[in-house]
Amino acid sequence: MKAQVVVTLKTGVLDPQGKAIENALDTLGVSGVESVRQGRYFEVELDGTDRAVAERTVDAMCKQLLANTVIENYRFDIVD
Amino acid sequence: MKAQVVVTLKTGVLDPQGKAIENALDTLGVSGVESVRQGRYFEVELDGTDRAVAERTVDAMCKQLLANTVIENYRFDIVD
Repeated sequence: MKAQVVVTLKTGVLDPQGKAIENALDTLGVSGVESVRQGRYFEVELDGTDRAVAERTVDAMCKQLLANTVIENYRFDIVD
Repeated sequence: MKAQVVVTLKTGVLDPQGKAIENALDTLGVSGVESVRQGRYFEVELDGTDRAVAERTVDAMCKQLLANTVIENYRFDIVD
Protein backbone atom coordinates (compact mmCIF):
# COMPACT_ATOMS: atom_id res chain seq x y z
CA MET A 1 0.00 0.00 0.00
CA LYS A 2 1.04 3.57 -0.58
CA ALA A 3 0.38 6.69 1.50
CA GLN A 4 0.46 10.20 0.07
CA VAL A 5 1.24 12.66 2.85
CA VAL A 6 0.93 16.44 2.58
CA VAL A 7 2.36 18.73 5.27
CA THR A 8 1.34 22.40 5.14
CA LEU A 9 2.01 25.43 7.30
CA LYS A 10 -0.87 26.41 9.57
CA THR A 11 -2.82 29.54 8.68
CA GLY A 12 -1.02 32.61 9.98
CA VAL A 13 2.44 31.06 9.98
CA LEU A 14 4.75 33.11 7.75
CA ASP A 15 5.91 31.39 4.56
CA PRO A 16 8.99 33.14 3.14
CA GLN A 17 9.46 30.44 0.47
CA GLY A 18 5.93 31.02 -0.80
CA LYS A 19 6.56 34.78 -0.89
CA ALA A 20 9.79 34.24 -2.85
CA ILE A 21 7.86 32.16 -5.39
CA GLU A 22 5.22 34.92 -5.72
CA ASN A 23 7.97 37.44 -6.43
CA ALA A 24 9.65 35.12 -8.94
CA LEU A 25 6.34 34.61 -10.77
CA ASP A 26 5.92 38.39 -11.00
CA THR A 27 9.42 38.65 -12.47
CA LEU A 28 8.66 35.87 -14.97
CA GLY A 29 5.48 37.66 -16.05
CA VAL A 30 3.08 34.93 -14.88
CA SER A 31 -0.07 36.82 -13.92
CA GLY A 32 -3.32 35.79 -12.25
CA VAL A 33 -1.66 34.40 -9.12
CA GLU A 34 -2.92 35.72 -5.81
CA SER A 35 -0.75 33.82 -3.36
CA VAL A 36 1.48 30.75 -3.05
CA ARG A 37 2.07 28.63 0.05
CA GLN A 38 4.74 25.96 0.06
CA GLY A 39 4.43 22.63 1.82
CA ARG A 40 6.07 19.22 1.77
CA TYR A 41 4.94 15.99 0.18
CA PHE A 42 5.89 12.38 0.95
CA GLU A 43 5.11 9.11 -0.76
CA VAL A 44 5.40 6.21 1.66
CA GLU A 45 5.38 2.58 0.53
CA LEU A 46 3.98 0.38 3.29
CA ASP A 47 4.19 -3.35 3.95
CA GLY A 48 1.00 -5.25 4.59
CA THR A 49 -2.54 -4.96 3.31
CA ASP A 50 -4.48 -3.80 6.39
CA ARG A 51 -5.70 -0.26 5.80
CA ALA A 52 -6.34 0.47 9.50
CA VAL A 53 -2.79 -0.56 10.42
CA ALA A 54 -1.43 1.55 7.57
CA GLU A 55 -3.38 4.59 8.78
CA ARG A 56 -2.04 4.17 12.33
CA THR A 57 1.53 3.79 11.04
CA VAL A 58 1.36 6.88 8.85
CA ASP A 59 -0.33 8.94 11.56
CA ALA A 60 2.45 8.01 14.02
CA MET A 61 5.07 8.82 11.40
CA CYS A 62 3.57 12.26 10.74
CA LYS A 63 3.32 13.12 14.44
CA GLN A 64 6.82 11.93 15.32
CA LEU A 65 8.84 12.90 12.29
CA LEU A 66 7.28 14.36 9.16
CA ALA A 67 5.34 17.31 10.58
CA ASN A 68 6.06 19.88 13.25
CA THR A 69 2.54 20.00 14.68
CA VAL A 70 3.18 23.32 16.45
CA ILE A 71 3.24 25.17 13.13
CA GLU A 72 2.17 22.56 10.56
CA ASN A 73 -0.90 20.54 9.63
CA TYR A 74 -0.72 17.18 7.93
CA ARG A 75 -3.15 15.06 5.96
CA PHE A 76 -2.75 11.80 4.12
CA ASP A 77 -4.51 9.39 1.79
CA ILE A 78 -3.92 5.67 1.68
CA VAL A 79 -4.00 4.44 -1.91
CA ASP A 80 -3.77 0.81 -2.96
CA MET B 1 -9.76 29.16 -7.47
CA LYS B 2 -7.05 27.13 -5.84
CA ALA B 3 -4.48 24.78 -7.37
CA GLN B 4 -2.78 22.00 -5.44
CA VAL B 5 0.56 21.20 -7.06
CA VAL B 6 2.72 18.17 -6.27
CA VAL B 7 6.29 17.90 -7.55
CA THR B 8 8.01 14.53 -7.23
CA LEU B 9 11.37 13.12 -8.27
CA LYS B 10 11.27 10.92 -11.36
CA THR B 11 11.73 7.18 -10.88
CA GLY B 12 15.41 6.34 -10.65
CA VAL B 13 16.51 9.74 -9.36
CA LEU B 14 18.24 9.33 -6.01
CA ASP B 15 16.37 10.75 -3.01
CA PRO B 16 18.76 11.22 -0.07
CA GLN B 17 16.08 13.02 1.99
CA GLY B 18 13.74 10.06 1.60
CA LYS B 19 16.53 7.69 2.66
CA ALA B 20 17.26 9.84 5.71
CA ILE B 21 13.58 9.64 6.69
CA GLU B 22 13.62 5.83 6.29
CA ASN B 23 16.63 5.64 8.62
CA ALA B 24 15.02 7.98 11.13
CA LEU B 25 11.83 5.87 11.14
CA ASP B 26 13.94 2.78 11.86
CA THR B 27 15.58 4.60 14.77
CA LEU B 28 12.18 5.69 16.09
CA GLY B 29 10.91 2.12 15.93
CA VAL B 30 8.19 2.75 13.33
CA SER B 31 7.94 -0.51 11.42
CA GLY B 32 6.07 -1.56 8.28
CA VAL B 33 7.59 1.10 6.05
CA GLU B 34 9.18 -0.08 2.83
CA SER B 35 10.35 3.19 1.32
CA VAL B 36 9.86 6.95 1.51
CA ARG B 37 10.23 9.47 -1.33
CA GLN B 38 10.10 13.19 -0.60
CA GLY B 39 8.54 15.76 -2.89
CA ARG B 40 7.30 19.33 -2.74
CA TYR B 41 3.78 20.68 -2.45
CA PHE B 42 2.36 24.10 -3.36
CA GLU B 43 -1.03 25.68 -2.81
CA VAL B 44 -1.64 28.43 -5.33
CA GLU B 45 -4.54 30.89 -5.03
CA LEU B 46 -5.59 32.10 -8.46
CA ASP B 47 -7.58 35.09 -9.63
CA GLY B 48 -10.47 34.52 -12.00
CA THR B 49 -13.02 31.76 -12.41
CA ASP B 50 -12.05 30.21 -15.76
CA ARG B 51 -10.75 26.70 -15.17
CA ALA B 52 -8.98 26.43 -18.55
CA VAL B 53 -7.09 29.68 -17.92
CA ALA B 54 -6.17 28.48 -14.43
CA GLU B 55 -4.83 25.20 -15.82
CA ARG B 56 -2.68 27.02 -18.37
CA THR B 57 -1.35 29.41 -15.71
CA VAL B 58 -0.42 26.61 -13.31
CA ASP B 59 1.14 24.50 -16.06
CA ALA B 60 3.32 27.44 -17.14
CA MET B 61 4.26 28.08 -13.52
CA CYS B 62 5.29 24.45 -12.99
CA LYS B 63 7.38 24.32 -16.17
CA GLN B 64 9.13 27.64 -15.56
CA LEU B 65 9.61 27.70 -11.84
CA LEU B 66 8.20 25.05 -9.54
CA ALA B 67 9.57 21.86 -11.11
CA ASN B 68 12.91 20.94 -12.65
CA THR B 69 11.47 18.81 -15.44
CA VAL B 70 14.83 17.12 -16.10
CA ILE B 71 14.57 15.19 -12.85
CA GLU B 72 11.07 15.93 -11.55
CA ASN B 73 7.46 15.26 -12.50
CA TYR B 74 4.61 17.53 -11.55
CA ARG B 75 0.86 17.15 -11.32
CA PHE B 76 -1.87 19.46 -10.13
CA ASP B 77 -5.56 19.67 -9.33
CA ILE B 78 -7.68 22.78 -9.67
CA VAL B 79 -10.14 22.97 -6.78
CA ASP B 80 -12.85 25.59 -6.42
